Amino acid sequence: MLTMQDALARLTAYWTAQGCLTVQPMNTEVGAGTLNPATFLRVLGPEPWRVVYVEPSVRPDDSRYGENPNRLQTHTQVQVILKPDPGNAQELYLGSLSALGIDVNAHDVRFVEDNWASPALGAWGLGWEVWLDGLEITQFTYFQQAGGLNLEPVSVEITYGIERILMALQEKTHFKDIEYAKGVSYGEVFGQSEYEMSRYYLDDADVAANRQLLEIYAGEAQRLIDAGLPVPAHTYVLKCSQAFNVLDSRGAVSTADRAAEFGRMRRLAGEVAKLWVARRDELGHPLGLVSPLAPASAVAAPGPRTGNRALIFEIGTEELPPSEARAAREYVQRALTEGLGSTRLDHDEVRVFATPRRLIALVSSVAAAEADHVRQVKGPKVGAPEQAVAGFARSQGVSPDNLGTAIYGNAEHHVVEKPETGGAAAEVLAPVLAKVVTGLRAAKNMRWNDPQLSYSRPIRWLTALWGDDVVPVAVGVLAAGRETRLLRTSPEPVVEIASAEVFMETLALAGIVADAEDRHDLIVTGAQDEVYPDGRIDVAGEAALIEQISYLVEAPTPLLGTFDESYLSLPEAVLTTVMRKHQRYLPVRDADGDLLPMFVTVANGPVDVELVQAGNEAVLRARYEDAAFFYRADRATAPSDMRERLSRLTFTDKLGSMADRADRIGALALALADSLGLSSATLGRAARLVKFDLGSQLVTEMTSLAGVMAGDYALHAGEPRDVAQAVYETELPRSTGDAVPFSIPGALLSLADRLDLVAGLAATVGLPTGSSDPFAVRRAVLGLLSVHRAHPALSALSLTDALRAAAAQQPVPVSPDVLEAAGDFLARRLEQVLTEEGKPVDRVRAAIIHYARPSVVDAQLAQLATLVGNPDFVAVAAAIQRARRIVPAGTLAGYEPSALVEPAEIALHEAVGNVKLGFGTDLAAFTAAVEPLVEPLTRFFDEVFVMAEDESLRAARLGLLATVRDLGEGLLDWPELRL
Amino acid sequence: MLTMQDALARLTAYWTAQGCLTVQPMNTEVGAGTLNPATFLRVLGPEPWRVVYVEPSVRPDDSRYGENPNRLQTHTQVQVILKPDPGNAQELYLGSLSALGIDVNAHDVRFVEDNWASPALGAWGLGWEVWLDGLEITQFTYFQQAGGLNLEPVSVEITYGIERILMALQEKTHFKDIEYAKGVSYGEVFGQSEYEMSRYYLDDADVAANRQLLEIYAGEAQRLIDAGLPVPAHTYVLKCSQAFNVLDSRGAVSTADRAAEFGRMRRLAGEVAKLWVARRDELGHPLGLVSPLAPASAVAAPGPRTGNRALIFEIGTEELPPSEARAAREYVQRALTEGLGSTRLDHDEVRVFATPRRLIALVSSVAAAEADHVRQVKGPKVGAPEQAVAGFARSQGVSPDNLGTAIYGNAEHHVVEKPETGGAAAEVLAPVLAKVVTGLRAAKNMRWNDPQLSYSRPIRWLTALWGDDVVPVAVGVLAAGRETRLLRTSPEPVVEIASAEVFMETLALAGIVADAEDRHDLIVTGAQDEVYPDGRIDVAGEAALIEQISYLVEAPTPLLGTFDESYLSLPEAVLTTVMRKHQRYLPVRDADGDLLPMFVTVANGPVDVELVQAGNEAVLRARYEDAAFFYRADRATAPSDMRERLSRLTFTDKLGSMADRADRIGALALALADSLGLSSATLGRAARLVKFDLGSQLVTEMTSLAGVMAGDYALHAGEPRDVAQAVYETELPRSTGDAVPFSIPGALLSLADRLDLVAGLAATVGLPTGSSDPFAVRRAVLGLLSVHRAHPALSALSLTDALRAAAAQQPVPVSPDVLEAAGDFLARRLEQVLTEEGKPVDRVRAAIIHYARPSVVDAQLAQLATLVGNPDFVAVAAAIQRARRIVPAGTLAGYEPSALVEPAEIALHEAVGNVKLGFGTDLAAFTAAVEPLVEPLTRFFDEVFVMAEDESLRAARLGLLATVRDLGEGLLDWPELRL
Repeated sequence: MLTMQDALARLTAYWTAQGCLTVQPMNTEVGAGTLNPATFLRVLGPEPWRVVYVEPSVRPDDSRYGENPNRLQTHTQVQVILKPDPGNAQELYLGSLSALGIDVNAHDVRFVEDNWASPALGAWGLGWEVWLDGLEITQFTYFQQAGGLNLEPVSVEITYGIERILMALQEKTHFKDIEYAKGVSYGEVFGQSEYEMSRYYLDDADVAANRQLLEIYAGEAQRLIDAGLPVPAHTYVLKCSQAFNVLDSRGAVSTADRAAEFGRMRRLAGEVAKLWVARRDELGHPLGLVSPLAPASAVAAPGPRTGNRALIFEIGTEELPPSEARAAREYVQRALTEGLGSTRLDHDEVRVFATPRRLIALVSSVAAAEADHVRQVKGPKVGAPEQAVAGFARSQGVSPDNLGTAIYGNAEHHVVEKPETGGAAAEVLAPVLAKVVTGLRAAKNMRWNDPQLSYSRPIRWLTALWGDDVVPVAVGVLAAGRETRLLRTSPEPVVEIASAEVFMETLALAGIVADAEDRHDLIVTGAQDEVYPDGRIDVAGEAALIEQISYLVEAPTPLLGTFDESYLSLPEAVLTTVMRKHQRYLPVRDADGDLLPMFVTVANGPVDVELVQAGNEAVLRARYEDAAFFYRADRATAPSDMRERLSRLTFTDKLGSMADRADRIGALALALADSLGLSSATLGRAARLVKFDLGSQLVTEMTSLAGVMAGDYALHAGEPRDVAQAVYETELPRSTGDAVPFSIPGALLSLADRLDLVAGLAATVGLPTGSSDPFAVRRAVLGLLSVHRAHPALSALSLTDALRAAAAQQPVPVSPDVLEAAGDFLARRLEQVLTEEGKPVDRVRAAIIHYARPSVVDAQLAQLATLVGNPDFVAVAAAIQRARRIVPAGTLAGYEPSALVEPAEIALHEAVGNVKLGFGTDLAAFTAAVEPLVEPLTRFFDEVFVMAEDESLRAARLGLLATVRDLGEGLLDWPELRL
Repeated sequence: MLTMQDALARLTAYWTAQGCLTVQPMNTEVGAGTLNPATFLRVLGPEPWRVVYVEPSVRPDDSRYGENPNRLQTHTQVQVILKPDPGNAQELYLGSLSALGIDVNAHDVRFVEDNWASPALGAWGLGWEVWLDGLEITQFTYFQQAGGLNLEPVSVEITYGIERILMALQEKTHFKDIEYAKGVSYGEVFGQSEYEMSRYYLDDADVAANRQLLEIYAGEAQRLIDAGLPVPAHTYVLKCSQAFNVLDSRGAVSTADRAAEFGRMRRLAGEVAKLWVARRDELGHPLGLVSPLAPASAVAAPGPRTGNRALIFEIGTEELPPSEARAAREYVQRALTEGLGSTRLDHDEVRVFATPRRLIALVSSVAAAEADHVRQVKGPKVGAPEQAVAGFARSQGVSPDNLGTAIYGNAEHHVVEKPETGGAAAEVLAPVLAKVVTGLRAAKNMRWNDPQLSYSRPIRWLTALWGDDVVPVAVGVLAAGRETRLLRTSPEPVVEIASAEVFMETLALAGIVADAEDRHDLIVTGAQDEVYPDGRIDVAGEAALIEQISYLVEAPTPLLGTFDESYLSLPEAVLTTVMRKHQRYLPVRDADGDLLPMFVTVANGPVDVELVQAGNEAVLRARYEDAAFFYRADRATAPSDMRERLSRLTFTDKLGSMADRADRIGALALALADSLGLSSATLGRAARLVKFDLGSQLVTEMTSLAGVMAGDYALHAGEPRDVAQAVYETELPRSTGDAVPFSIPGALLSLADRLDLVAGLAATVGLPTGSSDPFAVRRAVLGLLSVHRAHPALSALSLTDALRAAAAQQPVPVSPDVLEAAGDFLARRLEQVLTEEGKPVDRVRAAIIHYARPSVVDAQLAQLATLVGNPDFVAVAAAIQRARRIVPAGTLAGYEPSALVEPAEIALHEAVGNVKLGFGTDLAAFTAAVEPLVEPLTRFFDEVFVMAEDESLRAARLGLLATVRDLGEGLLDWPELRL
């Protein structure tokens, strides 16, 4: 059995053989290997650097007295930095797994999107978690920024979580059981330290002392920055970080502290980084400079060809995030279609496929060359001075006698006609394809070792064939060729393709399913086969997950796994959240829809089924064990105690702690209930508990379980069922399409929650614009709308009034402008939702004036659906619209009845006088009330000329029409309605 | 070329293969691997532990901005702990050198006595520095105590200095040039950090901040101890230590601070240690318990033998300190002689030889068995009651008829005679030899993995042969056998010995020179051969060194080395101090006695001469380079600036800093000069500079150069030659037999120096008793005596008066009792010195009353050498002695002359009246003055009966004699003088 210390030695030896230096762990406490100057400082600047080291990483927050099987206050990382990005870091990494004795062909090794950012260090990067049979064993990041500086060149950071890897390899279920060295367990060596350091971090660290330490360290860091010494300054930044973490784990970090400390550390880290770069520059870069890669040269263009052949263009990438692969598929489709359109090459339609590792464009037929054609050059108008005409001819190198003429617009011009030979396919296609590559953009882009490209993940190869010929594309350091890459575990991972026509077949033979729809179907049918006959997959319910999985693998291989039935006693949401969100496993249910103790995972390519199954089962077991651990601990804690912990959680810098927020939510819900006459004991109790589960361990771990766990814990703690229901429902809806609260107390709390969020954030962070919406304000607003719409009992509630009440509770002033903007935002969202639901836009726009009470809008739209077929309503509505058009804006509804002279207008006057108002927003009631006007109105418009010469008569007639107009005032935005 | 990172990996792999765990360096700054809990805590208690780890060791004091080629603020240790002592740790260690590619047969690897103690940790151990061709590459210690607790079992600690080893292996002269990894130098990787951290430690660390840190850390340590958490408490003790070291390197540690901080750290470390032991006990010792080794069983005794054979007894040890080997030789000689004497075995004389690794006792002839004999058991006296006699007979198992009789004292007793067979040699010898082993004791003893033994270094084997037979000795875990060990590098390091007679020959054939005198001669002649014809070895001058070397090797192999002539520009004392004290090299001189750029080192056994020569030369070069570096730096510093640094050096806790002491010395010297009328400008100037070189870098490194460097630096700084001479001479004499100050200012400063030391320490630490004399007070007193004796100009100076003056200057009260005790101490030392010089004891005792002015004693002894042959002096002295005997003590010298009656007494009375006093302490003058008394005295004693019956007559005669007696009062202690 590979012991932990041998694993450390092997990894170190492996990376040393790859040219890495070995250095020692940092000799002050760090939270991760990234903080070691061998990473944090060395990734800065232009010098090359390759290093591997072990880093015991201290996370005071993860202290569990050594009791939790998977969590340690100090875990062991192996950290690798490759600077510059060598271009094959993934392959090198797989080699390191082999060095550990892991058969990467038998196991399911996957690169799963994971982006890394450390705001406190001003650092971020893009990359993956690496999964070994579902277990996250490594963090793999292309470092883009550190200390706020762009990294040039980019470094690859590979961080192994050693305890996890060893638990998997040794098949242990508790970290203490890892065989650290032959015959000696991890627990025997580190158990006491794990317990005692946990005691320190959780219970015994002196808060005042650590606060003082933090100040002193920050002071030294600043002084050393001022003295121009980045190395000791960095050490003190690290000490700051540790002191801060200690305070945090002792629950001693206030809202204000946290924001201030993160700001201070970010600033210090930034200054250290700048100073380091400057110092290395002064020292003349002792380790030399990274030479940038030379741009690639395209292959030579092929000779002349004839006939039509297929075109294949493959852009090979490192694993793309699913959403980016999907988006890129569409982009390539569009860009290539446009690109081909700009040529004169005859061609079939463009088909594009995307997998995590490749974008493939296929055009089944493209002509060997563009047709020859004649190009017409436009000259002066016919009749222009002779000199001008002569000059044009000269400039075109023809004699004036050879000019022709042609009509441009309405004028006849002199022209020159130039016959041009069509370009050969390869030559014409090359710039088109290159432009497709350079045009690739993702929501979040990164750089790697390429002077030209920037994309979601590195682009590593291009395959471009027209028939048998390589299309001479060159972009950045890449030149297209005829090689493609198959699965990394293929016997021959890189193969040559004879011709474009056999490309897809080659992939297919290697097990790569290029088409996402095919992958989707393979996953669904494969999963169903696996669980047959006992279980079933909720294909509709898991659609989003299946869609995601289909972009996580190129060669879907569904496998069945099981878990111990005892875990079924955990709440279902816990089980499925772990499966879906953490592991991308498909839950399996019985005929009644109840969970079965099994799951389907989808491996990539052929694997050793039993091995991968066992591995995934172990991962799930560990996760469930973890969850069960938290669940038990939480259930042993009173909800009120958890509720108290919220004061240690920050909501935002300016909006106080989560406890503050929960207090506001409770108070607002009660106020709203009061105003609506909906107060209840249930609400009163639930308002005191609201959001308490944010203080639970399980929700801290899995935030998406907020609410679900509140309900569970409340019930377990003996709260009445309806109170539990209400605290659960507070969190609903969690996303578009999610359930809304069923109970009134739940609905009120849910509204109060969202109102508080919107009011506070609108006043501090601002309303969301574009795609940036870090606090999910948009989602909150949508939630407000759907909760209101779902509860007719709440229809009297004005969300704008409620927003004003929420605003009044905020710890910051919320200006009327902000409230107005928030109202607009609400209205726009409602309009969008309703139109997306298929409601006719005109009616939506007509009814949207009631956006503050969305259920009113709903009711009106329902009525309108009928009323638009009601001639009375239509007539009145038309009259109102006509009145609006005729009557100048600002005309008051009053008039002198005695001035009226025609019988038709007198009849209308009388009918109007008899209309009974008080129909509120009820369009049916309105229709009933105004029905008697239909005939007089018709007659009026038929017989009366409103704009009489006599001024007083005209005024009276306009006044009468204004009165008709105002009958519908505030009911609908009448002009919007198309009749 | 083996790179540094490969070396670290190889050592780690080697020790891992020996069953060591690998752990990580401590993640807080430590000064040495010993402080890592993997050593400090794990050596405590009864659990086994084997570990290897790298430890970057931070020594703020060693900061040199990366400029010094051999000194770093952070150097890299590899630390190994073997617990329990495996019994073959030295051999395992040699294996690790082989693993590094070091051919231990070709190189000269030596274990050179070096004991380790860390008062701040309450820790100590005995062991060695390991030398590789003269380079200290490893510290090898048997840990005896940590945190004030005795260690049971004992751990072996092996600490490699990696940079040094790599510099040697890679033949680099600056640490920055070490090839850290392929193509990357140490300087390229760590150079900037070395510079910047040096800046922090030497210049930029904020003193107030670090002082605060120290307090906070100590507070946390104490709190965690109180909370029963030794692991985090230990971490904070380490942080204390680092903060203290930072303060120290910033020169911010006052006398009081240092003592207090060391005390606090020792106390905290002690509490941590106790707590750790208790916690491990509570936890039930997770790593198990070390099983104590079973005592050895002796081999079976041989059958009956006849005739005489040789006896050989070898006690095999790990390398003994030279002084212990010498002492053990004498002990074994004595103990075995006594032991054999207590048997009835016929035997020759015992010869004993000692080398660093063995004590050999050889008796060329021992009988095969004791002679038979009759043992007589004494019973009751003849005439005792019959019952008693019968009881005696019964108790002896004989009938009363068979009792015999014998005379005991004056009485006849009943006896039983029991014939006894003599024991066989092997059986008789076994307990005798065992007792020799168990009786071995050193000045400082250690324990190792043996339940019974305790000695200077571990005893590893016993070889005991009588003729062909193994003598069945068993002691502790050792049973004697016929195997001995040769040189570790011998082709066959362990061999069987056929018989006692061939033992010495076997050793000799293997190159081991058992006899120290032979080794001495081999070294001298070998060295002389090496340097012939250009150089010579000052055999007499280097006697102590040669003697030491002869106990450092078993197979002396003198080798010549050279060094660059340019180093000859360094002061000779620097060159020779490095050679002798640090390297045990013999300096080589030309015919004029000037140093040549060469040296002789003495390797142990056959080595690759060129390799070892080159290695030793590199070591010397590095040392000289170091010295030159300091020397240049010092010469660039004004003496007054160095003098100021003394305020940062503690003398002792209660006696202030070195600056305080230097101030006192200067003031005292000036006062003494005043009192003697010897004041001078030279003294005035020298008094201001005195001891300034203790603030120099070179003297900080090599304290034995104190004074020498003062003279050099003072001269270089432009001080007058006689001032430089005086500051140099202040330190003289440095040891017994060393030169004394030649100049009066030098002599006064030297006296003042020693007077200050004696007065202060007598009052605080106490005068030395037994062998404990940590501050070398004894040597100071001897210095006082020799300086005084060397300077007749100072004969008027009373050392006791001067001591009183010195006492008056101390920062602590010095009581009259202390001063009196110090005077006595001085007198005893003087008496001892004089008798050792061969002066007759009686005269020394007679003259010693002038001990306060030793030169007076000298003068008197010189006079006495003549005067004892002078009849006049003898007659007067005899008379004075006679008068002292006759006259009762307390009798006054006065008498009534008129009471005298006899002519002889009247003549004496008149003669006494004419004696001219005022001869001071001058015995010749005294003799001249009392010569006229000779005749009257003779006559008086012949003719007068002093004790007359008449009372007044008797009183007058006694008074007259008392007057004679008092003529010599205070001149000599007359009764002591043998005439």
